[in-house]
Amino acid sequence: MMATVNENFLKLQAGYLFPEIGKRRRAFKKDHPEAKLISMGIGDVTQPLVPAVIEAMHRAVDEMASKKTFRGYDDGGVGYSFLRGAISENDYKARGVDIDIDEIFVSDGAKSDTANIQELFGHDNVIAVADPVYPVYVDTNVMAGRAGLAQQQGTYAGIVYMPATSDNGFVPQPPAEKVDLIYLCFPNNPTGAVATVAQLKNWVYYARENEVVILFDAAYEAFIGEPEIPHSIYEIEGAKEVAIEFRSFSKTAGFTGLRCAFTVVPRQLCAYSKAREKVFLNGLWNRRHCTKFNGVSYVTQVAAAATYTDEGKKQVRSTIEIYMSNARHIRESLAKLGYKVYGGVNAPYIWLKTPKGLGSWEFFDVLLNKAHIITTPGVGFGPAGEGYVRLTAFGNPLDVSEALNRIAAI
Amino acid sequence: MMATVNENFLKLQAGYLFPEIGKRRRAFKKDHPEAKLISMGIGDVTQPLVPAVIEAMHRAVDEMASKKTFRGYDDGGVGYSFLRGAISENDYKARGVDIDIDEIFVSDGAKSDTANIQELFGHDNVIAVADPVYPVYVDTNVMAGRAGLAQQQGTYAGIVYMPATSDNGFVPQPPAEKVDLIYLCFPNNPTGAVATVAQLKNWVYYARENEVVILFDAAYEAFIGEPEIPHSIYEIEGAKEVAIEFRSFSKTAGFTGLRCAFTVVPRQLCAYSKAREKVFLNGLWNRRHCTKFNGVSYVTQVAAAATYTDEGKKQVRSTIEIYMSNARHIRESLAKLGYKVYGGVNAPYIWLKTPKGLGSWEFFDVLLNKAHIITTPGVGFGPAGEGYVRLTAFGNPLDVSEALNRIAAI
Repeated sequence: MMATVNENFLKLQAGYLFPEIGKRRRAFKKDHPEAKLISMGIGDVTQPLVPAVIEAMHRAVDEMASKKTFRGYDDGGVGYSFLRGAISENDYKARGVDIDIDEIFVSDGAKSDTANIQELFGHDNVIAVADPVYPVYVDTNVMAGRAGLAQQQGTYAGIVYMPATSDNGFVPQPPAEKVDLIYLCFPNNPTGAVATVAQLKNWVYYARENEVVILFDAAYEAFIGEPEIPHSIYEIEGAKEVAIEFRSFSKTAGFTGLRCAFTVVPRQLCAYSKAREKVFLNGLWNRRHCTKFNGVSYVTQVAAAATYTDEGKKQVRSTIEIYMSNARHIRESLAKLGYKVYGGVNAPYIWLKTPKGLGSWEFFDVLLNKAHIITTPGVGFGPAGEGYVRLTAFGNPLDVSEALNRIAAI
Repeated sequence: MMATVNENFLKLQAGYLFPEIGKRRRAFKKDHPEAKLISMGIGDVTQPLVPAVIEAMHRAVDEMASKKTFRGYDDGGVGYSFLRGAISENDYKARGVDIDIDEIFVSDGAKSDTANIQELFGHDNVIAVADPVYPVYVDTNVMAGRAGLAQQQGTYAGIVYMPATSDNGFVPQPPAEKVDLIYLCFPNNPTGAVATVAQLKNWVYYARENEVVILFDAAYEAFIGEPEIPHSIYEIEGAKEVAIEFRSFSKTAGFTGLRCAFTVVPRQLCAYSKAREKVFLNGLWNRRHCTKFNGVSYVTQVAAAATYTDEGKKQVRSTIEIYMSNARHIRESLAKLGYKVYGGVNAPYIWLKTPKGLGSWEFFDVLLNKAHIITTPGVGFGPAGEGYVRLTAFGNPLDVSEALNRIAAI
């Protein structure tokens, strides 16, 4: 005998997208050292943390300096009740959704949670994802052995891909094949699409009829601008029996460098044993969370709670307005220039159709070489992303204006 | 079809130990509401963060308030080089061990890392653990399907248990059975034992001969007091080819409420594919880390780096001295009273043999009812822990003195 590796890891394709972007960027910089590149590809926030969060963190740091107020382990690791209570009140009860603090699990990121959630499910479960898609859903299932080999077009055998195209408004229909777990992300990364109440009702109905669990990534819900768009899948009746929801402070409140998120696993949600006995997922996730994780920094949890104060809410809202004003500017300027643009109304992402049938990478090169702008080729998110590039609204407003002027000048 | 659960989770035994302690504690409090209980069972730090850490955190929080110095994602999520550099210099190069920053992965906790590391290995790998043992190693392998059913004595079928008893000085010998992965923890939780150079050499030799990977948990290395005891398994020649090492700031610097740790995966360490091809584990862990995790809070990483400054080192050392003075006090007082005590010299844990052949829970009840002291029954860590209780040195020095007076009075 000998220690052997998990060979599923060997099926993973090298993370091609961002290294390739980096390579082309460096080559361009070498040939044009004087050029001022503007990145519209970045998926990270750029505005500083708001004053209410900064003040709360200073207070929490001082508490850690005194024996009387020092905090060790967050007992159980599921999050302090002051934070889970604020989430329950502000993100759910304020929208008419009754989510209890025992259904909320605070974590270090939606990436971790959407990656780890698959551990609760049987090895044989068939996974469905949208195409294009945030790569973490697929990669983590490949690692766990729920996929076959990588295929030439950038997909994996055994995974069901649901195309999100301009024909369906980038909101896929339930798949024709039988599947067990479905990842949905609205507002969507990379397309910026959102699902309406009717569309989500259709998904919930389908999941209930087919004993499917929906893994609903709502990390970008704070960017929803249109009042009729649901922020949570639990705004749909019956969703608590079929859906897990992922939320994050990363983009909402600029916490990418602090690390705080949460996952909702409703009490009534279950999957099945092979003998068709119901197994409730709240207890299973609690066990997973408390066995493999030891909670989020107290200082960070205090910071997250500060985003729910009156001051915090107002300040976080004005940061989001900066990004959404960028989004509006990008969308409207490009539309005026005759480009086809999607997203950017309820999401910080703009999904831009390449002109003249250019491929994603071809148009990436045009924007790099002619406008000195970095974007993200849509095909990097899946084969249905071919013919698109993703622009993000997280940049500096002045840079965004400059970038749009350069595109107009091409 | 339907969503099914990972039935390995259903094999897990309910976390019996701490809930049962809580139950007995509550029952006692109900019958004796006036009693002043002292906890010597707590595995969490109680001293506040040191001034160098507090100052560094305030500075880092202020950086997050300004657009110029704001930090988003820790690119790649493996830790800032300022922290990995400090670790490489202070924890390794200063002890004559050459560990490069690319071999260091910063994370949110040694619990997470020791839980997640098994994902890199094949499903069929046979796991060996010491008995008694920190339960995370076993529970996470049960969840991954590397164990059979739970057995009556509190073990799982399919896992190899290596008894750590007074006969072997609580340092087990390599197992007679063929195994693939071995978890070792020195200084040990719960016994407080350490491994000598000769003992670790024996382990490294065995691992090299048998193509075994050692998962070496050194979370308590900062408590080592005797100069001849190795702090890192890499102090043993040849260990880099066979061992992964886990470290933590939790107990070292009181970070249980901040969350920071790191794992070392040397570049030359490999396991095998089924076709006996070498697969290097550094790249595999890097892929796992970057796919399922998004880095540690910048503020926390700055805090961790502050423990390596001259001031930080001195201050952290004096906190550890408080705990180790408690440990000395407990050990010496109990020995004087005629108890058999182990550990407490190079670890914050004292492993106390129960008198008169009492069982762990029987002696727990004696100490609770007669001295109003909470301990941790050794049998809760595994069958070889029967006849012991674990005492921790993390309490307040005054409480420790009071507890020892009460024990003397029994």
